[in-house]
Amino acid sequence: MTELNDSESVHGTSNLSASSVSSLAHFIDQVTMLCGPTQVQVGDAIEPRFLQPARYGAGRAAVMVRPGSSAEAAAVLALASRHGRRVVLQGAHTGLVRAATPMDGQDEVLLSTDRLREVFELDLLDRSLRVSAGFRLSEVNERLAAQGLWFPVDLSADPSIGGMLAHNTGGTRMLRYGDVRANTLGLQVALAESADPAGQVVRFGQGLQKDNSALALGQLFIGSSGSLGLITEATLKLSPLPRQRAVALVAPSALDAVFPLYQAVMQRWGVLVSAFEGISRAALEAGLHGQDLSRWFSGALPDYAMLIELSSELPAEQLDLRGLLQGWLEEAFESGAVSDAVLDADEAIWGLRHRISEGLRAQGKVIGLDLSLPRRHFMSFRERGQAWLAHFPQLRLADFGHLGDGGLHFNMVWPASAGALEPAQELTLRQGLYALVAELGGSISAEHGVGPQLQAAYRAHWAQVAPGVLDWSGRVQSVFDPNRRLGNTEWGA
Amino acid sequence: MTELNDSESVHGTSNLSASSVSSLAHFIDQVTMLCGPTQVQVGDAIEPRFLQPARYGAGRAAVMVRPGSSAEAAAVLALASRHGRRVVLQGAHTGLVRAATPMDGQDEVLLSTDRLREVFELDLLDRSLRVSAGFRLSEVNERLAAQGLWFPVDLSADPSIGGMLAHNTGGTRMLRYGDVRANTLGLQVALAESADPAGQVVRFGQGLQKDNSALALGQLFIGSSGSLGLITEATLKLSPLPRQRAVALVAPSALDAVFPLYQAVMQRWGVLVSAFEGISRAALEAGLHGQDLSRWFSGALPDYAMLIELSSELPAEQLDLRGLLQGWLEEAFESGAVSDAVLDADEAIWGLRHRISEGLRAQGKVIGLDLSLPRRHFMSFRERGQAWLAHFPQLRLADFGHLGDGGLHFNMVWPASAGALEPAQELTLRQGLYALVAELGGSISAEHGVGPQLQAAYRAHWAQVAPGVLDWSGRVQSVFDPNRRLGNTEWGA
Repeated sequence: MTELNDSESVHGTSNLSASSVSSLAHFIDQVTMLCGPTQVQVGDAIEPRFLQPARYGAGRAAVMVRPGSSAEAAAVLALASRHGRRVVLQGAHTGLVRAATPMDGQDEVLLSTDRLREVFELDLLDRSLRVSAGFRLSEVNERLAAQGLWFPVDLSADPSIGGMLAHNTGGTRMLRYGDVRANTLGLQVALAESADPAGQVVRFGQGLQKDNSALALGQLFIGSSGSLGLITEATLKLSPLPRQRAVALVAPSALDAVFPLYQAVMQRWGVLVSAFEGISRAALEAGLHGQDLSRWFSGALPDYAMLIELSSELPAEQLDLRGLLQGWLEEAFESGAVSDAVLDADEAIWGLRHRISEGLRAQGKVIGLDLSLPRRHFMSFRERGQAWLAHFPQLRLADFGHLGDGGLHFNMVWPASAGALEPAQELTLRQGLYALVAELGGSISAEHGVGPQLQAAYRAHWAQVAPGVLDWSGRVQSVFDPNRRLGNTEWGA
Repeated sequence: MTELNDSESVHGTSNLSASSVSSLAHFIDQVTMLCGPTQVQVGDAIEPRFLQPARYGAGRAAVMVRPGSSAEAAAVLALASRHGRRVVLQGAHTGLVRAATPMDGQDEVLLSTDRLREVFELDLLDRSLRVSAGFRLSEVNERLAAQGLWFPVDLSADPSIGGMLAHNTGGTRMLRYGDVRANTLGLQVALAESADPAGQVVRFGQGLQKDNSALALGQLFIGSSGSLGLITEATLKLSPLPRQRAVALVAPSALDAVFPLYQAVMQRWGVLVSAFEGISRAALEAGLHGQDLSRWFSGALPDYAMLIELSSELPAEQLDLRGLLQGWLEEAFESGAVSDAVLDADEAIWGLRHRISEGLRAQGKVIGLDLSLPRRHFMSFRERGQAWLAHFPQLRLADFGHLGDGGLHFNMVWPASAGALEPAQELTLRQGLYALVAELGGSISAEHGVGPQLQAAYRAHWAQVAPGVLDWSGRVQSVFDPNRRLGNTEWGA
């Protein structure tokens, strides 16, 4: 196919160990011939954005390659397989568990899906979109808006579609629309190993809404944290854009009023409820950072607040969502369950919600746990979690989360003024909280995935909760990636 | 554990070949000690209901066993594994692909989940139900109604929960609520092989709504047609019962008005649309069988009709669904897209819909294809399918289906008066239609699963459409059931 060349790479400098130089140079030459010299970066010449994740320290890779099509991506994997090289897959690099960040600069190939943008096929009658992995969520929704449609997995970040599938993101409106899994009708995968230089691409699911004519293998890749295979495209299920929304920020009279209010809202409005978020006072303060929105509340900031959103495809003339919400709030106020509430400020309320993470980062080092819990244990986890934090007096809890789906961003800030947080101390902190999650039947990763960041916690959690999960997961990973070339998550024991 | 006994079984008579007698007798003794003599039936003594499926001829099994708990079921599988026996899994035996019908009486063990009824744990705050596989759908929904909840996968049949998961049923309201997969939060599986006499039970998913802390192995068992493992219990996602429904039976002015009407309805009402069915004239006639409902239509029965249902958690005082539907129908009538319509007869309309299958069976032998298609090819499939049927002049097409999700029950009747339909002729008929499905990007099994009935068609379909699917499915099946002991579906090439 190409002339082989064993000479040292000229695409950049890198601190490679002597033993790996010649084979790496050979690989680089071949991958350069495949994707073109402008799409290959080597060692120290790799742009920082490919190495620096949104959270945690930068990684290092031997080489970064950006194939321009599914076929090219499959060929890169085949090449890596022939050369015995490990490949880390990266979308928009917005993930929070380092699953897309190469951790071992001596050895790893970084494959960016940035340029996988061949397919964007909208089927209006099926309300589905076949789309390449490299498109960003924001781009997809901008293009769909003109048709009155959207992909309703709604996030503060702007990931690639491939990254969203690999991590099965949930977001703020999951209560109404479900996670990525519930909105995916099929996907195409380039597999890890192939004897054919063209690689191996398989389509799992043909994009139909109803299909039981095969095993659900495609489901395995959704939420696999960039292991098992490279998702090169997906067929997404779209939803009609709502024609109206009504949003309220509501302070309960006491913490134990929160879930009864949640239950009342769900029983009353069901599918009209598109978000039900909980925000602690410390998180509220972080979200208000630099904004004078404290006028919203008649008194001081409440200890806890709920963000409640109703939405509908019907226009307000046919269904008065704002009126429904207001009527209910008045009742709840009179009954004493609610002490304060704000309506009529949708943009400002969501702005506050989406500024929390940034506001917390401004206060110091954020230790963010992305948990979910059975709702009956949600408040008890908060309480017992706070008790555990008493061992770390400098730490400040600023939790918020998706009460509606049981998700809890149990985020804590270690203030800059407290000096460095020792890794051993952070480990102790996390282990105590994860043990509590396991005890209460919760998840240590609600929507962020596993990756190197949670690798040890993953293993410890399942070894305790259900060891069979580790055993069978390792076996299934071995089917698709027997030599562990893809990604940096080990699913086995 | 028990005293072994190699003497011939006394639990019933059976026509076993001499070579398998002693080991079968041994197995029967052991399984009888495990589950008790009243829960084991042998050979000809097996009750017909366990052998006679809803469609197609009866099967035969060597022995039928009904374990009384998940633990007992796991032990039965372990015993079968030690004895090298194949096991067919059966729920309520309502499936339509013979996946739960033992086909080889010489050899197979039939495991009925009838008595798996240990767990029924409702979590009102999570709106979830942990339930044993043996419960029937109707029982589950009867128990839930008092709480204003239901499991919204709505079928004419009354399967067991385990059977619903094994076949990932869709039903008439899938458009609004999704299939079983979309409404399952976790499951527990007893696996095929185990060195431990107690067997091996693993829980995949803890019943949380948001969880990405493991590979999605549980998804593999959903829709596996009773292969890979025995689902002993599941955690189901429940929905609030709607407080109102409005149903119309609508005759379009022409066939090509159907999908524009569908699109208009979806864009206008979105998630309020809980059913959108299509019914051909022949199917209408079958559904009307013995009922004088022809008065509904002002003229003759239309060539095609649509069943449209809106539903909502809101009461009619807050949202007038009937008014919305009526207003839209008046517009559609004036615009000429609709020629006739009936409102205000919900029970009667659904009754008609659910009587179609029975009505067709009264006319002769039914050849039922459970297809789905991209909606843009739906009408073209109908047209070209009908053209193919011209080769079989005695056959009468009476199709109906779930236009809303692309599902099509392409059912045909071979009238009793036409004599027997030769198997070779039926095969030719089916092959022609399946080839058309493949060409148009459809599914040969939308919601019934695969099983022996579709085994050959499955292999032919994927060999043509995506051979990798066969290859990888076979490998995954080998992980969980290396010796092919469970069920009667082979997923490999």
